[in-house]
Amino acid sequence: MKQHIDTLMQQNHVDALWISGAGQHNSAMVYFTGIAHLTGADLFVIPGRTPILCHGPMERDEAAKSGFDLLSYAEFDLSALLKETGGDLRTAYALRYKRILESIGLTKGKVLVYGSRDVGPYLAVVQELQKMLPELELTGDVNEIILLEARATKDERELERIRAMARVTTRVVGNTLDMLTAHKVRRDTLIKSDGQPLTIGDVKTQINLWLTTYGAENPEDTIFAIGRDAGVPHSSGTPTDPIRLGQTIVYDIFPCEQGGGYFYDFTRTWCLGYATDEVHQIYDQVLRTYNQLVSELKVGINPAGLQQRTCELLEAYGHETVRTNPRVSSGYVHSLGHGVGLDVHEKPWFSRPTDDSNKLLPGSVFTLEPGLYYPEQGYGIRLEDTYYVTEDGRFIRFADFPMDLVVPMRAG
Amino acid sequence: MKQHIDTLMQQNHVDALWISGAGQHNSAMVYFTGIAHLTGADLFVIPGRTPILCHGPMERDEAAKSGFDLLSYAEFDLSALLKETGGDLRTAYALRYKRILESIGLTKGKVLVYGSRDVGPYLAVVQELQKMLPELELTGDVNEIILLEARATKDERELERIRAMARVTTRVVGNTLDMLTAHKVRRDTLIKSDGQPLTIGDVKTQINLWLTTYGAENPEDTIFAIGRDAGVPHSSGTPTDPIRLGQTIVYDIFPCEQGGGYFYDFTRTWCLGYATDEVHQIYDQVLRTYNQLVSELKVGINPAGLQQRTCELLEAYGHETVRTNPRVSSGYVHSLGHGVGLDVHEKPWFSRPTDDSNKLLPGSVFTLEPGLYYPEQGYGIRLEDTYYVTEDGRFIRFADFPMDLVVPMRAG
Repeated sequence: MKQHIDTLMQQNHVDALWISGAGQHNSAMVYFTGIAHLTGADLFVIPGRTPILCHGPMERDEAAKSGFDLLSYAEFDLSALLKETGGDLRTAYALRYKRILESIGLTKGKVLVYGSRDVGPYLAVVQELQKMLPELELTGDVNEIILLEARATKDERELERIRAMARVTTRVVGNTLDMLTAHKVRRDTLIKSDGQPLTIGDVKTQINLWLTTYGAENPEDTIFAIGRDAGVPHSSGTPTDPIRLGQTIVYDIFPCEQGGGYFYDFTRTWCLGYATDEVHQIYDQVLRTYNQLVSELKVGINPAGLQQRTCELLEAYGHETVRTNPRVSSGYVHSLGHGVGLDVHEKPWFSRPTDDSNKLLPGSVFTLEPGLYYPEQGYGIRLEDTYYVTEDGRFIRFADFPMDLVVPMRAG
Repeated sequence: MKQHIDTLMQQNHVDALWISGAGQHNSAMVYFTGIAHLTGADLFVIPGRTPILCHGPMERDEAAKSGFDLLSYAEFDLSALLKETGGDLRTAYALRYKRILESIGLTKGKVLVYGSRDVGPYLAVVQELQKMLPELELTGDVNEIILLEARATKDERELERIRAMARVTTRVVGNTLDMLTAHKVRRDTLIKSDGQPLTIGDVKTQINLWLTTYGAENPEDTIFAIGRDAGVPHSSGTPTDPIRLGQTIVYDIFPCEQGGGYFYDFTRTWCLGYATDEVHQIYDQVLRTYNQLVSELKVGINPAGLQQRTCELLEAYGHETVRTNPRVSSGYVHSLGHGVGLDVHEKPWFSRPTDDSNKLLPGSVFTLEPGLYYPEQGYGIRLEDTYYVTEDGRFIRFADFPMDLVVPMRAG
């Protein structure tokens, strides 16, 4: 949680965090400033001090909402700096950062950098700045021991925002179900009122409209994939594909608050009208595995162990897994889950190699999403919910939603 | 244009471009791959060779659509690399890049990096990689002489995509006008059918729904600001503000193709029902300035000169400008325009200091957006259209839309 950042920095001998980029769709910045209309900013977090936010002069009002100490780029005029550096833009930018760092008294020590932005100019300017301030060590937190570690456990306010996104998500999924089942069917294909087949693209447009209406967005798209595409976990679906009865539909939706806030992550697999015996059987195995894993959740465990356990359970049904073959493309081919927060994938990790800090703890928010994929047989199945851990160590699913495979069609 | 990249690289002694990050909302990557469902990828562009795209094993199909040579991360197994590096993640990632670069024969020379992604882990890994490959010089293109220079002129296919976004934009703006004028008015405030005032938030939700319906999105929000907020160019509007007659509304909309493609940028200023004499007069000055600037557009000029010219024209009307006072907050307070493409702000620049390559040339796409702001008097005015330059040197506005200040209300 945020309150742990100073301690984590001190324990790890880090003198400051330097977060840069926009105040929207930039999880590291949004964690501190909230979703803010800042097109480009630099935030310095130093233990025991109020964070310092550097902002463009036109964005003063927006920056002030943060409650942080403010510093306007206008105080470091770029034209003057350019004259000083003989017209070299790279050196001028570096000199501006040097002056900013000097003005806040941060010219030596270890500084970890964060934020999503264009890496090219950033790298060039940091290289130059390093030469100007040789006692300053600028580097990144690859092991995620400071900011991502703090973000890996959520406080009650964060949980409430994720809960609101869970409600939005299941409402959209419920709407989708109502829309699908209200369609007429002709030769196993869903037909719109204009007589044309209902397509994946039609459904996705409607999903986007509902998300917008409920104040959410899906910056990384939505997976609504049918048949063979459902058997390829990262296929988001082919827009022109018609929706047909009896084929698996993998519907994986991971929206966030508008502007790039907290995410929710959720998957159901449906067969409209009917399912083949094979799909029924495999679906049952995924559902049993899901339930078994939920029953084995324990506070303090490293979720990487759960990934191994999933492989074990699915191998017992005779499937290939990423454990038996890292390049497997049918069977169990991905990771069991991941942390969820201001990024849709974040710490704790279920498959990525990490240190001991990677644990399920009170405040952890994570997905469970076992699946089985047989693209050559034209189907894939995945079930996913997002859970959190309470202070007293219980595992709670943010939102309930039926887990039925077969969706009865209402219209003839 | 894309066809110039090899030449630009050779002229500037650059051996390769290394573009990384996702295949969506990442302009440098999208320029080459199109909007692609790649969660994380690395693309290497080397003169005279087919670009090489490194992708996750589950995203092979999506990567193949690029037509580029492919390399799967699965061929550089991270667990094996971790064993080699004694469990250090940073070194393992760097070693993976080293092996990738070795496998494509790129271990020395000057490589420019591009792409939007988390800068922290990136910086740390690049620092490590630099130690492993000391003959490789990795840096960024701060002066925008290669990729951004190529992107600064658009070919006919790109222009057609921007034209389509211009149609979407003006359609949404037209819808907005229809919606506003259809509302009833009570004591100068627009009233919804439920008797409540129509708010900025209501209008913005509807704008988002239209954008979604027409296949667009607005990742950087929309400015729909009234009264004092209209006088602050970077205020996007207060969602709870009611829409009132007689106040200036600055409506600046800059959507892009869904998934993060080409942008369009457009602004109108409206007063519903009526406008004060002062606003009429200042609006007229902005409009005259806009028309004057359009008449002075010439192929080959550096648009920074147009910014100076705008200051001159507006100062003649007695306004303060950024030229007379760089920290000015009323009068003319921003830049006249900017290039538009896969980024909403890109080369050519109107105010940023740049070299001689910053010119209006056939294929240039840019905005013209003069404005005058008086927040303390409760108003602001801006007019903006996006233009392009034809092969024979004509300046064409992508989409026409009326420039009337006062919008007559239809309902009583």
